[in-house]
Amino acid sequence: MDMDNLTLNTDNYQLAMAYAHYVNGTYQKKTVFELYFRTLPFGSGYAVAAGLERVVRYIENLHFSEEMIAYLAQQPERYSAEFLEELRNFRFTGTIRAVPEGTVVFPNLPLLQVEARVLEAQIVETALLNAINFQTLIATKAARIRREVGADGYLIEMGTRRAHEADAAVWGTRAAYLAGFDSTSNMQAGMQFNIPTKGTHSHSWVQTHVNEREAFERFANVFPDSTTLLVDTYHALESGLPNAIQVAKELEKQGKRLFSIRLDSGDIAYQSKTARNMLDEAGLSYVKIAASNDLDEQTILHLKAQGAKVDIWGVGTKLITGYDHPALGGVYKLVESEIDGKMEPCIKISDNPEKITTPYQKNVYRILNAQGKAEGDYLTLRGEQVASNGEPIKLFDPVHTHSHKRVADYTVRPLLETIFEDGRLVYARPDIEAIKAYHQEQLQLFDPEYLRNLNPAIYLVSFSPLLWRRKRELIEAYSPQQSSYR
Amino acid sequence: MDMDNLTLNTDNYQLAMAYAHYVNGTYQKKTVFELYFRTLPFGSGYAVAAGLERVVRYIENLHFSEEMIAYLAQQPERYSAEFLEELRNFRFTGTIRAVPEGTVVFPNLPLLQVEARVLEAQIVETALLNAINFQTLIATKAARIRREVGADGYLIEMGTRRAHEADAAVWGTRAAYLAGFDSTSNMQAGMQFNIPTKGTHSHSWVQTHVNEREAFERFANVFPDSTTLLVDTYHALESGLPNAIQVAKELEKQGKRLFSIRLDSGDIAYQSKTARNMLDEAGLSYVKIAASNDLDEQTILHLKAQGAKVDIWGVGTKLITGYDHPALGGVYKLVESEIDGKMEPCIKISDNPEKITTPYQKNVYRILNAQGKAEGDYLTLRGEQVASNGEPIKLFDPVHTHSHKRVADYTVRPLLETIFEDGRLVYARPDIEAIKAYHQEQLQLFDPEYLRNLNPAIYLVSFSPLLWRRKRELIEAYSPQQSSYR
Repeated sequence: MDMDNLTLNTDNYQLAMAYAHYVNGTYQKKTVFELYFRTLPFGSGYAVAAGLERVVRYIENLHFSEEMIAYLAQQPERYSAEFLEELRNFRFTGTIRAVPEGTVVFPNLPLLQVEARVLEAQIVETALLNAINFQTLIATKAARIRREVGADGYLIEMGTRRAHEADAAVWGTRAAYLAGFDSTSNMQAGMQFNIPTKGTHSHSWVQTHVNEREAFERFANVFPDSTTLLVDTYHALESGLPNAIQVAKELEKQGKRLFSIRLDSGDIAYQSKTARNMLDEAGLSYVKIAASNDLDEQTILHLKAQGAKVDIWGVGTKLITGYDHPALGGVYKLVESEIDGKMEPCIKISDNPEKITTPYQKNVYRILNAQGKAEGDYLTLRGEQVASNGEPIKLFDPVHTHSHKRVADYTVRPLLETIFEDGRLVYARPDIEAIKAYHQEQLQLFDPEYLRNLNPAIYLVSFSPLLWRRKRELIEAYSPQQSSYR
Repeated sequence: MDMDNLTLNTDNYQLAMAYAHYVNGTYQKKTVFELYFRTLPFGSGYAVAAGLERVVRYIENLHFSEEMIAYLAQQPERYSAEFLEELRNFRFTGTIRAVPEGTVVFPNLPLLQVEARVLEAQIVETALLNAINFQTLIATKAARIRREVGADGYLIEMGTRRAHEADAAVWGTRAAYLAGFDSTSNMQAGMQFNIPTKGTHSHSWVQTHVNEREAFERFANVFPDSTTLLVDTYHALESGLPNAIQVAKELEKQGKRLFSIRLDSGDIAYQSKTARNMLDEAGLSYVKIAASNDLDEQTILHLKAQGAKVDIWGVGTKLITGYDHPALGGVYKLVESEIDGKMEPCIKISDNPEKITTPYQKNVYRILNAQGKAEGDYLTLRGEQVASNGEPIKLFDPVHTHSHKRVADYTVRPLLETIFEDGRLVYARPDIEAIKAYHQEQLQLFDPEYLRNLNPAIYLVSFSPLLWRRKRELIEAYSPQQSSYR
């Protein structure tokens, strides 16, 4: 099974619709879809875009293998031989624009735009959402955790055992790393993405030895420059710490230094402060303290407020599953479609105003004020020019329109980059360190009020007056003649 | 990148410990680890074991590729050439026992037991937990949803776009199917595991046509025997339903029947009842109603209580992410280790009694009463015989020991099957339909009080008197001499 080829990681209905378009002769119809989310997870004021690298690999590998064709040929949909031949030759030939990974993003902002034959645009929908929803979720969670840890704490991702299967561990780690983690325990992610890996030992290391002291000595002798000793197999403060201190003293005689001790259970605030005192009193102020055990940004905030002495934070389950909000609800909506040879705007009506889609292929701009700080994002029609003749620009919330402001002295920065053009990869993929640095630059564009974890200020994602007017016209045109409860 | 070879989907510390054992000459030491979880997710009274098929494939594929060896050779741990050569020849040569997929399982029950050289047992830990934690979580959630839907509702898994990357979609779907779902939208899962796939069309199908009526007609003409029409692109009851009814009438003229209509937003209770009436009045009582939109067992229970007329339930996000409890906290603990050539029991002490591990390699039995119903599970030492001379057996909760009962007329059923024996696969892997049927049989063993979704009765996972005594002796032996706060 070739899991690098995710072409069938799509929904049944994408193929059914592709076939129906094929039979009806409309499969070459040009369409534009935009991918965005409506609601921020975790109570955050922003999200961190991630998943594009996965999308690039997916699109580059996109093709139906013979095994897939054979499988489709047996399905109850009774796909015709001609259609299956079309699929056999299927490649992505469209254009994809996207915000780069690490970009600070907001609800209703197109993160990705697909301009392609409807056949192609439908088949790729599911996998694009699968990658971007998950990775953006985890990058966002990681950024929250980094915020509470602060710049001087060291953060290790260690959630593989609780991640949702292997891909989530590997790609989730990458998302966490680009959004501010320092390393991971996952070796596959380390190899695949060149992310530093870190580790300690487990309780079982201690248990496979005659006693804790022997276990510590034997581990430290193998890694004399980088040992972290896990001290809570039996009793952290009565047994683990005293043994670790003895081992550190022995290492000193060899001119080596114990790197750190790790606490993985119990009262981390109390234990870390006591351990810090014990280490300092033993002349081991250089030995760092690592903590783990179901940590997230909330527990870290509380631990720091209690004066916990933790230098290294190991975060697993709560990060890698996005525990308190485990799905980003990204959607992929048709905004333009070729009807009778002409591109026409498309809208999806809903009784819930947030769920009405915004028609037209868009340009996406970030509006920066004279101090270089972001004031809001600004969506226009694709062909539209943003006024840059010095006139103030009005930014408003398209749902709650009373919320607005004018910005006078501004510059605009386009957010969408072209990734594939007519099927050809044109994007110079930055390496992971460049993405990580870009994300930190992004954060500098925003006042901290937008970035704080609790009750952040709401950032405006505004429409141009033209886009606003056109959307309202379409809503009118598609509204039912008589009113009704729903 | 060969993602079928998950050998490096392990934590840094597994390799570090393997290396430390290698350097210290202890890497061939025999160990026994058991995998279990301590707490049930979702407020459930039981979980549904899943993930074993993934484990089998993982173990069979387990080897370090040359790329992996080259990567490890560059790591800061400075693994020796001899160790890397050992890894190059590394295969799994141990024994694995496990409960079959689909088994109804409970906290503290060993789901899987690894008996292997410490080198092997450590390296596989992370991937085993990754697969079993996730798949058992999703199977358990799926069983909850099936319970509220009832035997006559049809359940489609459709969560790929919100699943945590590709593996979670594909393996999560399999877990959902074995625990009671009828089909999936995911084509890869369909092909890989022979699971039926189903689909409808999306809003974009409607939007790429001049109007809804044309869109419906064109779709129905391609799939005249199996069409589901999504009616809420504009207005479900004012536009979608009337158009769907027209199309159904046209299909009737060709001797065909519209299969169903689908509601994907708004008030499902109201809309489904109104739609049912409209369809029935039009003589289309055979047209089924499908519903989707962030459904889970709770919303399904409420919809049914309100008399919603839904025949087909599409469940996505809330299932595939285990939304309200997105991690099963399965752990993998050392229970025996070879010390000086002899297998010795191992224990991990904790101030929290639930977190104290239970030493010794175990046998696991289900105790069935005279009516063939499960009364509790029973853990013994591996070599120990369960009394079957007619004496009553005492079942008790090992933490809350006041909770107990005696069962007089019972039979015992062993739960662990041998999967790998000395590295050789000896398990006749059942196909997915057999696993699905086995899960339904499992449910019959339990009184419904244990199975209900809200406030289920607590099922006893008991120890033999000998295991109980031995564990207490070890706790005494490892307890600190002086008392302290922690």
